[in-house]
Parts: sequence; C-alpha cells; structure tokens
Amino acid sequence: MSTSADRHVVIVGGGFAGLGCAQRLADQDDVRVTLIDRNNYHQFQPLLYQVATSQLAPSDIAHSLRSVFADQKNVDVKLAEISEVDLAARTVTSADGGRWDADVLVLAAGSQPNFFGTPGAAESAFPLYSLDDATRLRSRILGIFEQADRDPKLIERGALNFVIVGGGPTGVEVAGAIADMISVTVPATYEDLDAGAAQIHLLDYGDALLKPFSDEAHGYVAKVLEEKGVKIHLGTGVKEVGTGHALLSNGSTIATRCVIWGGGIKAAAVAAEGGLAQGRGGRVDVSGDLTLAGHEGVYVIGDIANIPEAGAGSLPQLGSVALQSGHWAADNILADFEGKPRKPFVYHDKGIMAMIGRGAAIAEVGKRHHEIHGQLAHMAWLGVHASLMTGTKAKIEAFVDWAWDGFSKSGGPHVLDRGDAAEIDWDKDVVVSQSAQS
Amino acid sequence: MSTSADRHVVIVGGGFAGLGCAQRLADQDDVRVTLIDRNNYHQFQPLLYQVATSQLAPSDIAHSLRSVFADQKNVDVKLAEISEVDLAARTVTSADGGRWDADVLVLAAGSQPNFFGTPGAAESAFPLYSLDDATRLRSRILGIFEQADRDPKLIERGALNFVIVGGGPTGVEVAGAIADMISVTVPATYEDLDAGAAQIHLLDYGDALLKPFSDEAHGYVAKVLEEKGVKIHLGTGVKEVGTGHALLSNGSTIATRCVIWGGGIKAAAVAAEGGLAQGRGGRVDVSGDLTLAGHEGVYVIGDIANIPEAGAGSLPQLGSVALQSGHWAADNILADFEGKPRKPFVYHDKGIMAMIGRGAAIAEVGKRHHEIHGQLAHMAWLGVHASLMTGTKAKIEAFVDWAWDGFSKSGGPHVLDRGDAAEIDWDKDVVVSQSAQS
Repeated sequence: MSTSADRHVVIVGGGFAGLGCAQRLADQDDVRVTLIDRNNYHQFQPLLYQVATSQLAPSDIAHSLRSVFADQKNVDVKLAEISEVDLAARTVTSADGGRWDADVLVLAAGSQPNFFGTPGAAESAFPLYSLDDATRLRSRILGIFEQADRDPKLIERGALNFVIVGGGPTGVEVAGAIADMISVTVPATYEDLDAGAAQIHLLDYGDALLKPFSDEAHGYVAKVLEEKGVKIHLGTGVKEVGTGHALLSNGSTIATRCVIWGGGIKAAAVAAEGGLAQGRGGRVDVSGDLTLAGHEGVYVIGDIANIPEAGAGSLPQLGSVALQSGHWAADNILADFEGKPRKPFVYHDKGIMAMIGRGAAIAEVGKRHHEIHGQLAHMAWLGVHASLMTGTKAKIEAFVDWAWDGFSKSGGPHVLDRGDAAEIDWDKDVVVSQSAQS
Repeated sequence: MSTSADRHVVIVGGGFAGLGCAQRLADQDDVRVTLIDRNNYHQFQPLLYQVATSQLAPSDIAHSLRSVFADQKNVDVKLAEISEVDLAARTVTSADGGRWDADVLVLAAGSQPNFFGTPGAAESAFPLYSLDDATRLRSRILGIFEQADRDPKLIERGALNFVIVGGGPTGVEVAGAIADMISVTVPATYEDLDAGAAQIHLLDYGDALLKPFSDEAHGYVAKVLEEKGVKIHLGTGVKEVGTGHALLSNGSTIATRCVIWGGGIKAAAVAAEGGLAQGRGGRVDVSGDLTLAGHEGVYVIGDIANIPEAGAGSLPQLGSVALQSGHWAADNILADFEGKPRKPFVYHDKGIMAMIGRGAAIAEVGKRHHEIHGQLAHMAWLGVHASLMTGTKAKIEAFVDWAWDGFSKSGGPHVLDRGDAAEIDWDKDVVVSQSAQS
C-alpha cells in the first residue's frame, strides 16, 4: 500500500520507455508512481503496419495501461495530455486542468512524424506512428479498394497507386504488406477490382533501403520487394503532397490517393518545453545516466531522448533502446533514493529486424545476417515481438490472428471504419501520372 | 462461374437476414448475387453490449462481408448506402451514384433506433444498435471513468450515474454489464475512483423487464439486477434527455452524462421509399411467403419486415427470425426460378435468451424456463450465439476473449478511442439529481 510519505515518480508517456520504467518501479517499497498518457492504452508500435493493412485488429496491439498495472497498487494511471513542464518545480500540467507534482520526473513522451516542411504532407499524407494513424490508413486503403471496385474508371485516375515515402522499417514493412494485400487478399475478395493495375512506389533519398542493415541485406530486401511488384525509387524523395498526387524530387508526378509517410520522426512537442536542450530531430540531450544535466530529479528516456552511445554518437530510436532505457532509469531512480551512485546506461544490442511482407524477414545481430523465409519467418518474428509484448492476453490473440492467416488467405479484420479517411473526393486534385523524363 | 445470363438477385443489407439469404443462394447455378451494405462488415448485433462495456473488441463481432463470401464466386459484395428504391423497375441507387438492377430484389435493411420524438434523445442519448453506436458508448463510459478518476468532484455532479431507457434485452444486458464493470473492473483498475458512488437506473414504461419472458423469469431478472445494485423503475420512461441530465416521466431529474437508449427500434429509412405499406414501427407489411404484394420479384425480410405469424399477429424482431427469413426467402427465390410454388414462411422458435451480467442468464423455449448460473451461463450462452456466428475465426477469438475473462477480472479490451463521445463538457447542463417526491 502506498502512502503520501512515499517518493512520487511521475512518468509522462506509456510507450516502451515509460512502461518499462513503471514496471521496474512497480511493487517497490516507499515509491509511488503516476503514469500519464494521452491514451488509456499502450500501443505496440512495431505492429502498426499490420493494423493499417488489416492483418491485426487495433485491439490486438493496444493494451489497457490500467489492466497492465491492475495488481500493482503503487502504480496509478492517468489519462491526460501534458502540455507544460516545469523542470525546476518538477511539475507537469495538462491543458484540461490536471497537475502533478513529482519528486522524480521521467519524460518518456516519444516522437511524432516529421514532415520536414514538405508542402501538403501534414494535411494529405498518412503517417504511421500511432494507433489512430494506423486505423486512419486502414480506412483509406479499404476505402480505395471498395470505391475502385464499384467504379473501375477510378483506377485510370490513379486510385490503385500507393506512394510510400521513406525506406526505413516502416516504409519497407508497409510496402511489403500492401503488395501482399494486392496480390493475395484483393483477388480473393474483390471480384471486380483489377489488382494488376495497382502500383506501389517506395521512395528513399538514400542509396539503399533499411540503411542500418548490411549491404547483403540491402540486396535481399530490394530483391524481395521487387518480386512482389514494388517499384523502388532510390535517391528520390517527395517535394509536395496533394489530395490526389505526389510530386517527386525528380520532377515526376504520381496520381495517388494514398501517400504513406515513413519519412522520419521528431521528438514529441513536450521536448520544446521548459528550456530543454534539443539535439538532432528535436531530441532532448541527456547525460549518460539518463538524467538531465542541471535539473535535479529529471530523467528523459526513449525516443524523446538523445542518448549518448558508449564511444561516440547517440543511440537509435528503437523499441528495444526505449524499453531498456526505461528499466535503466528506474534502477538509477532507486539508486538515488538509496543514496547510491547512478550508473551510465549501457544498451544491450538485441539486433534489428524487419518483415518484408508474408514469408520473408531479415534480422541482424551485430555482424551476423539472417534471411528468414516462409512460415519460419512468421514464427521467428512473432517470437521476437512477443518478448516485448506486455500483455499475455494480447499475445494469445495476436497469435490466433497470425496463425489463422496461414490457413485463410482472406483472413484478417478487414473492417472499414466509417470515417473521414474513407471518404475521398475523386473529383478534387485530379492528375495524370507523368514522368519528368517523358 | 457466373455469367451475365444468370438471374441477378440484389440484396440490400448484410445483417442476419441478408447474410442468410446470400449464403443460401451462394454456389447455386444460374444465379448471381449482389449483396449491398453501408458497412463492409456484418455486425453481430446480440453482442454489441459487450463491445460497449469493453468485454469484446469491435473486430470480434465484425465480419468482413467480402471474407465471408471469398470462396463464393457468384456472390459479389458492394459497399454502398441505398437511398432510393424503384420497386417497379427493381432498381436500387445510392446517393454517391451507384445503381443496381435486379431480377429479384431483397430488402433486408434492418432497423434503426426509435426515439419516439423524445426531446434531446437523438442528440444526447446513446443508442446501441450498430457497431458505431457500441464504440461511441464505450468511449463515453471509459471517458467518464477516466475523468471522474482524475476529478472526484465530478461524481457529486452525477458523473457515475447511468440511465438506461428500456427494459428489453438490450437494456437488461447493458445494465448488468455496466454493474459488473463498476463492481469488478473499476475497483481493480481505477484506484482513485469511488465505485460505490455509482448509480445505475433502468427504466421501463411497462410492468416488467424482459416482457416477452414468463412471470417466473421477470422475478428472477429483477432479483439478479437488484443484487448487482441496479435500480429498476417500472412504469417509468424518460420525457427529455439533455447533455447532463434525464428528466423522467414521474417528474424527477437524474444528473447523468450517459443515457443509454434501448427504448425501441423502427424500420430502416429505406422502408419509406417507393410507396411501401408500413405497419407497426414503420415495418413493411409482407405476405406470408415474404414477398411484397403487388410487386413482382420483391422480397422483404428481417427486422424491416412485418412478417405475419401463423395464426395471428406478426413475428418479433429477433436475430433468429431474421436469419430464418433470409434462408426461407432464398428457397422461395429458387422456387420462382424453377417455376415451383413458393411456401409460406414458418418460423421455428429457437427460444429467447438474455444474459444478465456475469454468471447469470435466462433462456426460455416455449413454456420451458431456464435459469443458468455461473460459468455454465457463460458457456451455454456462448454456444447459442456461436451457432449464429458466421466466421470461424471470430468464433475462436471471441472464445479466447471470453474464456480469458474468467481468469482475469481486469481483462477485456479497455481501449478508449479518441473521439467526440469521450469528450464531455462538464460545465454544460449541470444539474443536481432530484426526485419529484422530495
């Protein structure tokens, strides 16, 4: 039972970092924790692209934060969007009048999409960083299929053109998943839709997809995606996004009603609060022990933090970095309380992995490179992700969905929410795709 | 493989009736079917209250219509909202320009909530007739819990008062389920919320809950609900619904941010099209063989139809009536095509059943009355519903959710969608509950 005499840790954000920190502090004596998030659930971000492509239901990857901590009486969950941070007072406030005073403040508010000022992108592109993003994109994709199925003339106007900006894991995974929808699900379920007319364009300004992977992996990813029909445009970005088109950096225009933004992220807005020093991507520069220099009792962890890597540079924005930084911060907080020295964060590299559509995955741990094929790819990948998952119930359900997929090609929750994303004004911003070279 | 020479059956509505009809016509020679619905999924209506109370996820009770008919090449699914019906030409059109010409037209458009002109009900009450309704109500209930957990003063202003209008299956089931949330889920997960302050009011103008059941059942239902803390107001309806109150027919006012409408249904708007004869609740009067007198090749089935009962009166609006009328209409359509006589619809009474919260159910088949308790109640009830379910995948998933519930009191997908229903202006329409008698 927690009392008012306990030390109060306030954690802003229930992603991997905040969740990891709260879990490590749960059931500790003389500590009470308030975990604040704008949603009442933790969203399992690595699987957002599966929700967007109707392979998983939103509830499969959303875990009620209250349920996660139902048995931990020293962890209290609050639904609020923090708008102001007072680092000196260690107080956070929400626009709707909430206020929390902390003995130790942990900022774990994550990231948001970074459109880099690209005209029209914030209005018309579909980012894929939150569960809301994923359900909106799902509605758009299914809305396109339904409407083009009823009116084949829309296909001539680019209805089945998909433009994916950014060749990182998000772009590669969603490109592979949409290609699979078009080659497997659509022919099985949309009888009147000419799936062969679909085009999937994957753009990246760099010289390879999945840049942090090895050269060997780069070749494999490109080969798998091209076999699935994805057109890869390297050294190419997007200059402008409209409701009905994307203008590429090479001057060509693609008619499309679906531009998916995997083009980058920046720190959550709260990072700009309270005079925090912001580094690359707006991330907050933290000390090696995850504290904020000059601010007693303030930790910054996960995607919102610019965490120095042992040696040089900073750690990448990965789920495993976030989770480990959350655990580590909790240990340092407990050390503070016991008057012991904090330890500098050491990241244990669990490797990187990406799923390139059905039956193909790529994993790299250090210098070791793995290409995984077929049903084994599904299972191996599921295992890695399951180890991150917090709720056993979700694990079972995700597995049921996943396993079922192997039996039923048309499986998956193809549920079209009635929302703005499904409603397309086909007469607005009508363009014909044109290449700059032609 | 269907050809253009096949006879074309157009079915409007993918509920139990339309789905039953399409399934019976699937794979029949020389017939092609177009099944039109405003959603791309079939919603399993008997379980809507479970979505509203976070026991099931929306995807558990939504079945993609395209997936259901993925292997039936003579059944084509279209997403459209039919706005006009030309009975003479057997043509239906949608506001967005869709048009379908039928050899046989089947109207199975279902029902919609009937507010009986109660002031404010359409604007402020929460009906529970569609999946959209259920997710909106879920957001409202969870939004209330979250906001009252942060600000206990809201409870004095009626935040935890729930008013349920109508003592039919919907009202009884949702009342029991909310009572269970408040006695089991809320104490386990909302540490700062005073669940004991909650009030659940169930109103019905009649003299018993679940009127079509036996007197013995009436007593049992009232006893179970009262033990759960539900206050039952018989002979009482609602005169006005505001954003912050309900004015009852006895003159008393209850402060509430959640009025749930189980007060009645009426036929879907399309019933008023084309000069159809409308009976009780706006339902379309049909002949005993489910055809529309005076209109060759038009069938009307399910909740939208006023189907005469052998003997006298008309059949109730039940899922089993709808499903059976769908199958029967299909058989009569095939008889038409073969030049054989149609048969008058005979309903096989499968009995009626209602779930009164966790661990208590009531079932009646003819004169036989069953009270079912504990885990058995869950299982028996699940079995009955599973027999109606169309998708095996959904069956497995719903079962996993259900079974899990027995182990984890805080289980269930307590996911709060960010939407209008969760946003409450607590300073608007502030009232204090007052009894007319005091």
